[in-house]
Amino acid sequence: MTHDVAKISPFAPTELADLPVIEGVRFAACEAGIRYKNRDDLMVAVVDPGTTVAGVLTQSKTCSAPVLWCRQSLEGGKARILVVNSGNANAFTGKKGREAVEATAEFAMKATGCGRDEVYLASTGVIGEPLEAGKFRHLLDGLVTSAKADAWPRAARAIMTTDTYPKLATRKARIGNVEVSINGFCKGAGMIAPDMATMLCFLFTDAAVSAQALQQIMSSGAATSFNCMTIDGDTSTSDTCLIFATGAAAKRGQKPVDEVGDPALAEFTAAVHDLLKELAIMVAKDGEGLSKFVTLVIEGAESDAAARRIGLSVANSPLVKTAIAGEDPNWGRVVMAVGKSGEAADRDNLSIWFGSRAVAEKGERAASYDEPTIAAYMKSREIDIRVDVGVGGPGRATIWTCDLTQDYFAINADYRS
Amino acid sequence: MTHDVAKISPFAPTELADLPVIEGVRFAACEAGIRYKNRDDLMVAVVDPGTTVAGVLTQSKTCSAPVLWCRQSLEGGKARILVVNSGNANAFTGKKGREAVEATAEFAMKATGCGRDEVYLASTGVIGEPLEAGKFRHLLDGLVTSAKADAWPRAARAIMTTDTYPKLATRKARIGNVEVSINGFCKGAGMIAPDMATMLCFLFTDAAVSAQALQQIMSSGAATSFNCMTIDGDTSTSDTCLIFATGAAAKRGQKPVDEVGDPALAEFTAAVHDLLKELAIMVAKDGEGLSKFVTLVIEGAESDAAARRIGLSVANSPLVKTAIAGEDPNWGRVVMAVGKSGEAADRDNLSIWFGSRAVAEKGERAASYDEPTIAAYMKSREIDIRVDVGVGGPGRATIWTCDLTQDYFAINADYRS
Repeated sequence: MTHDVAKISPFAPTELADLPVIEGVRFAACEAGIRYKNRDDLMVAVVDPGTTVAGVLTQSKTCSAPVLWCRQSLEGGKARILVVNSGNANAFTGKKGREAVEATAEFAMKATGCGRDEVYLASTGVIGEPLEAGKFRHLLDGLVTSAKADAWPRAARAIMTTDTYPKLATRKARIGNVEVSINGFCKGAGMIAPDMATMLCFLFTDAAVSAQALQQIMSSGAATSFNCMTIDGDTSTSDTCLIFATGAAAKRGQKPVDEVGDPALAEFTAAVHDLLKELAIMVAKDGEGLSKFVTLVIEGAESDAAARRIGLSVANSPLVKTAIAGEDPNWGRVVMAVGKSGEAADRDNLSIWFGSRAVAEKGERAASYDEPTIAAYMKSREIDIRVDVGVGGPGRATIWTCDLTQDYFAINADYRS
Repeated sequence: MTHDVAKISPFAPTELADLPVIEGVRFAACEAGIRYKNRDDLMVAVVDPGTTVAGVLTQSKTCSAPVLWCRQSLEGGKARILVVNSGNANAFTGKKGREAVEATAEFAMKATGCGRDEVYLASTGVIGEPLEAGKFRHLLDGLVTSAKADAWPRAARAIMTTDTYPKLATRKARIGNVEVSINGFCKGAGMIAPDMATMLCFLFTDAAVSAQALQQIMSSGAATSFNCMTIDGDTSTSDTCLIFATGAAAKRGQKPVDEVGDPALAEFTAAVHDLLKELAIMVAKDGEGLSKFVTLVIEGAESDAAARRIGLSVANSPLVKTAIAGEDPNWGRVVMAVGKSGEAADRDNLSIWFGSRAVAEKGERAASYDEPTIAAYMKSREIDIRVDVGVGGPGRATIWTCDLTQDYFAINADYRS
């Protein structure tokens, strides 16, 4: 699973975001030898009693055993510990998979003295190989006792698979007059598509917010962040995105918020959504083998949902993606991908811009089209494509994706060996 | 548009099918200089008065001007001439596109002395570039007068774009006691997905069958042939599949059949469907850059339609396709792609076979799984994958596809230059 071809993404940040300590959250990671050598592959996050939790999980019909576990735990809305391993997804592992989840949860409960439904589990890596929980269950006690409040980068690195850089971000927001922090990190680089991206994402905040209110914030936030991002159109069996709120800000005077949609949560909601968007873009910018990052804006569609479906049809088109990789301004393929989406579009009223320049207007090549100018633009590292689908509707969506290069093949043609 | 990398498909036939003359059908082709050099790029088929016609066309919302033309002509059910050019799809060319279609049709009508709705047009090639009908309209007269009954291979070659071989097939069938012939040829190698494949396909028969009855035969036939075949999941703006029936067999005593579903058409229907399937497989076997041909059988789904959607989800998955290219028996990705289809599947009752060998049974790795044996199988040129999705339904579908290799990129990264 090491890839000679796996170059660092050209979009890797030169330095990692500096995440503040969040009261009530501690991390530890270690090398459990699940699959990788010489790197951490087991991570725990320990959160203080009283922490609320919400999340969104893969829609896959063949989801992994840990996803089923989380779905059940989320019903209680409380958390004490999150255990994540990389290298093995514990997906499609049948009875053995359920046993591995049970065994891991059992030891996590003992290590923290918490209840079953306060344990959250996630696994990422190869599908279909049994996960030996025995490889790490003896490590959980030590991880829990040694967990530290400032171990964000180490935690973010431990959950990586084909990622070429760790993905961390942070925001501040006020609830009432009290400032709270929200930190997050995620992983994902391939098998990335909406519902959700192939992706693990964990957010932590010291805000005092009920699980119900958090859930609404996460569901709406995922819709315009991770669910508007795609790398290869493939959907993981293991996608998990959770937010943990320790409530420690209540000690500093934050009035706990229980109600879904309470106006006091406006700034906090915006901050969480913004953080999710930053993390989603970080994932698209680490797409396997990418050379270019692409932002696609769809306008004039019948509805936002229609615009999103059109955008994903374009973003997932192998022909659009290979043309971008080849720096070929082949806008005809964009038209093709709009057409195949099934959503209303008026061929004779459709317009397309590459960067700030129109390439197609009212259904044909723009009068101002100048091939050398557009060709020069295609050499940019970040490509913006805007499409007005021409039916005069209010629908709009922004989709983030990357190009599809020969390196994607090199990485994926023999992932398991 | 010439590709140094475009190797001949390993599945190219060593010799072309030998198609018999069909009374009432003649072909001619020539070099019109539309885009290619030193090869035919304009083809006409002239059919005798009284010929009936039916067809299926792309479902794209941004379909080409010639597709709109054919849709209208098909309402009449009669044909005298088909004009096809390669090199330019005349798609997304706005008013100029409609003018090119009108001009071409005008000259085709004059050359044959037929009505507007007896003219059929198809164009394939680059999208978004205006097609200069002036380049070939003066050639139509000569093509019509020089058309020959045995020019099948030349006609099939003239409509090719990135195809690496011409695709021809033939069948015989009896209607009553009279034997009729059905010949067909098609093109397509990329931008290939159901509804329809990126594809032009033309069938010709001497049978005397009404347009209504032909339409039913074509619609049902496309559903289990071209609409069960995919190369890259992209849908063309120009897909056109037409069948022309000259009725010449009536002179040999075939009683003309008018009624949709007349039992006298059973053998003929089966022969047309079989011919469509052979042509669809030829297209999949010429997928851009392919190294392997893949037959996917989905069983145990809720319905045939569900099985087809699951099969296409697997066949279009970049991760499944790259694993096959890499000869990696990564059946976990098959599970992923089943799961993302949205159709009912029981993770814990799902089974997968590669060739004759089980790789997964009842939701986990098969007890008999032997990596070296399966790895050796993956080196085959033709790969069969069977999936029982485990919900015990009667739904079944067969899907044909190919792997996705680095050559697909090389071919598509700079198609226009």
